[in-house]
Amino acid sequence: MTTKAIVLLSGGQDSATCLAIAKKECDSVEAICFDYGQRHRIELDSAQRLAAVANVNCQKIDATVIASLTDSALTNITTSIQQEKEGLPNTFVPGRNALFLTLAAMVAVTRSAHIIYTGVCQTDFSGYPDCRESFIQSQQHTLSLAMDQALEIRTPLMYLTKAETVQKMLELDRFDWYAHTHTCYEGMQPACGQCPACKLRLKGFQEAGQID
Amino acid sequence: MTTKAIVLLSGGQDSATCLAIAKKECDSVEAICFDYGQRHRIELDSAQRLAAVANVNCQKIDATVIASLTDSALTNITTSIQQEKEGLPNTFVPGRNALFLTLAAMVAVTRSAHIIYTGVCQTDFSGYPDCRESFIQSQQHTLSLAMDQALEIRTPLMYLTKAETVQKMLELDRFDWYAHTHTCYEGMQPACGQCPACKLRLKGFQEAGQID
Repeated sequence: MTTKAIVLLSGGQDSATCLAIAKKECDSVEAICFDYGQRHRIELDSAQRLAAVANVNCQKIDATVIASLTDSALTNITTSIQQEKEGLPNTFVPGRNALFLTLAAMVAVTRSAHIIYTGVCQTDFSGYPDCRESFIQSQQHTLSLAMDQALEIRTPLMYLTKAETVQKMLELDRFDWYAHTHTCYEGMQPACGQCPACKLRLKGFQEAGQID
Repeated sequence: MTTKAIVLLSGGQDSATCLAIAKKECDSVEAICFDYGQRHRIELDSAQRLAAVANVNCQKIDATVIASLTDSALTNITTSIQQEKEGLPNTFVPGRNALFLTLAAMVAVTRSAHIIYTGVCQTDFSGYPDCRESFIQSQQHTLSLAMDQALEIRTPLMYLTKAETVQKMLELDRFDWYAHTHTCYEGMQPACGQCPACKLRLKGFQEAGQID
C-alpha cells in the first residue's frame, strides 16, 4: 500500500525535522500550515520556504478563529511573552493542537492520506496538555472514529531532546533545511537569541556540537 | 458546584430541544453557532432568534475554514442535496462535528464551563460516524486531556426518535420555541416539505400528534 502523509509545518525546527522524517518514511507527503493570526508572519513564510526546499505542496489553512476564542500572547502583539499564567507559559492556547490535528485529519481524508506528522514534544513542552502522548493517542482514536477510517498520528520527536532532534536531522542529511526555519518568539530576523524559544534552540545546537 | 454549559445551536429542531434541556438541567447556559458557509444564512438567524427567546448569549463562531477543506452539498449551492456519494448523504462533511466540538471545548474553557450540549442523534444520522456515541465518548476523553480538565459532552437526543424529541419539548413546555427553528435543506421559508430534512421533521410532528 502507498503510504501518504500530511505534515503539520509551523516553520520551526521541530516541524522541519518532521518533514524530513516523513519524506524518508512515506511514499507521498504534503504539508499544511496554519494561519492563526500569529504575531509574526515570518513563521508562515518559513513554512512555505521549507515546503519548497522539500519539494512538497503546502496548503495554508485559515485558523484565525483561534484569535476570536482566546486571549494569548502568541496572537496578541501587545502582550509580553515571558509572563506566566497559572503555571503555563502565556503562549498557551488551550486546545490549539487539538484543533490543528482535527483540521489536519479533515485535510488528510480529502487527500486519501492516512498518516499525520506533528512535531509535538513532551520533553520540552510538558506544560502543554495537548502535546502529551496520552492526548495524541486519544486524539488518534477519536479522529479515526470521526472519519470512519484508521488514521495514524506520528510524533517522532515526542521524547527527543533538542540536541537529539538536531542529530536526527544530521543523520537524514537535511541539516541545511534549518537555514529556512524560524523559532524566535519575538519575530526577529536574525533571531533575538534571548527569548525562551531562541535559548532552547541554541542549547540544542550547542549540545549537538553544531553552529546555528 | 455551579453547572455551566455551552450549547451548540444550529437553529434546527434538535439543537432547540438541547437548549431547552440545558436550561432545565444547568445553572448557567450560553450558546454558540457556527458560520461554516452554509447554503442558507437563515440557519444562523434561527439560532440567534432561539437564543433570544431562551434569554441566553449566543456567540457566532467563524468555521468557514470547512468550505476550504472539503467539497460538500451543504456549502455548495450548485449541488443538489438528494445525490449520494459512497453511501452517505452528500451533505456529509467528514469531521465536521469533531471540529465543532473542539471549538466548543475551546470556548467552554474560556468561559469556565465544563458541559457541552450537542443535538447529535444516532437514530436519524447513523451514516455520520461523528454523530455516533462511540465517537462522542472518545471525543469527550480527548478534549478533557487536551484541556487538562474534565469536560462532559451531553447528547440527550442520541437515541430519541424525532417524535420523542418533539414529546420532550412538550414536556419541557417549550414547544413554542419550534416556531423559531429551521430545518429545510433547501432554505425555503416556509419550508419546502419535500427535502429529506423536511420529511423527517413532518414525520416527527405527526407521530407526536402535533402540527408544525
